[in-house]
Amino acid sequence: MARLFHVPLSPFCRKVRLSLAEKKIEVELVEEKYWERDPDFLRRNPAGKVPVLRLDGKILAESTAICEYIEETRPEPSLMPKNPDARYEVRRLVGWFDDKFHHEVTSKLLYERVNKKVTGEGYPDSKNVKEGARAIKYHLDYMAWLLDHRRWLAGDTMTLADFAAAAHFSALDYISDVDWNRSQAVKDWYAKIKSRPAFRSILADQVPGFRPPSHYADLDF
Amino acid sequence: MARLFHVPLSPFCRKVRLSLAEKKIEVELVEEKYWERDPDFLRRNPAGKVPVLRLDGKILAESTAICEYIEETRPEPSLMPKNPDARYEVRRLVGWFDDKFHHEVTSKLLYERVNKKVTGEGYPDSKNVKEGARAIKYHLDYMAWLLDHRRWLAGDTMTLADFAAAAHFSALDYISDVDWNRSQAVKDWYAKIKSRPAFRSILADQVPGFRPPSHYADLDF
Repeated sequence: MARLFHVPLSPFCRKVRLSLAEKKIEVELVEEKYWERDPDFLRRNPAGKVPVLRLDGKILAESTAICEYIEETRPEPSLMPKNPDARYEVRRLVGWFDDKFHHEVTSKLLYERVNKKVTGEGYPDSKNVKEGARAIKYHLDYMAWLLDHRRWLAGDTMTLADFAAAAHFSALDYISDVDWNRSQAVKDWYAKIKSRPAFRSILADQVPGFRPPSHYADLDF
Repeated sequence: MARLFHVPLSPFCRKVRLSLAEKKIEVELVEEKYWERDPDFLRRNPAGKVPVLRLDGKILAESTAICEYIEETRPEPSLMPKNPDARYEVRRLVGWFDDKFHHEVTSKLLYERVNKKVTGEGYPDSKNVKEGARAIKYHLDYMAWLLDHRRWLAGDTMTLADFAAAAHFSALDYISDVDWNRSQAVKDWYAKIKSRPAFRSILADQVPGFRPPSHYADLDF
């Protein structure tokens, strides 16, 4: 069976979990305290980061490379369109969320509130939290604009771009940092993706010391 | 003709320039002071970052999405192997350099020494510079280890992984931040990639206020 070394609220791990689940690849989840830099773990991934996936007898790292590999080796159900223009748009948005959104929002809210406590680095920096809370509004508006003329973020079908975005949003939702009232279009999009069977394991996550809001696992939030 | 909005020392722009040049796609380079947030530029790319490429009548952003698009629409000469395992390894290493190396090295050396001055953000933070100088040694050793049993970084052929790495290293070499004596294997690899015609435009770059070392454009450095 596949085995994923992960931490529950990591958006990069969640993106891989969603890809695996959507393609019905069974996986054993192993929590990895990557910040403790266990030598066995560093041997598996010298980058010292999660996710790390054991699949097809190989050890795979870097979430985007992993998702592209899963897509190429298990093309059905497809999370990538066939046309180069449409594929570009999926990858642009995966980059948007995993780089820009991660830098401007996730690292300033989730990492300040949760990761710092879990890894013993101390208390949230309120300046960062304020910046993250301001930036997420701009991103919600951008998503609303995209969803105004598309069924899913990158076009008419659900793709890796939706999983990348949902991975970040679900982790932020766990700590009540998403204002779902800002855009009905984004709320509808999230309700649609949240109700997929692939999302179940993510909605069941529990992080000691952090209790999710009651709407977190509620499909009618 | 294609047009690339870029800044000369940006590793992400250089990666795209190398891909375009290797595939003999002529491009007009336009320097874009993205930090001035010109409204025309933000319309082209709401992410507000370079590179932005006008190609095939489209506006493309996010360097990795751009390189994959170029590869899919101009497959020859190939910068991506055919086999999923080999493609995974290319993408893993592109992620390694554009995420980990960028965070640990490029942002701490190039951005402190050059970007801060150019954008008027002030003086280099010596703590960051010291951390970057320490981290690059570890990365050079990792590359030496890879090159010990491979001709190129991701395998036996030159790929996007080599261009991603060379984009970062060439920008750092411009400010004399690479110790080429640390590994003969890495030096040989860089000499090989530097001598390609695709590299010429990069070796001719000039940034006002920063003069490159004499070895920067020297193929026998």
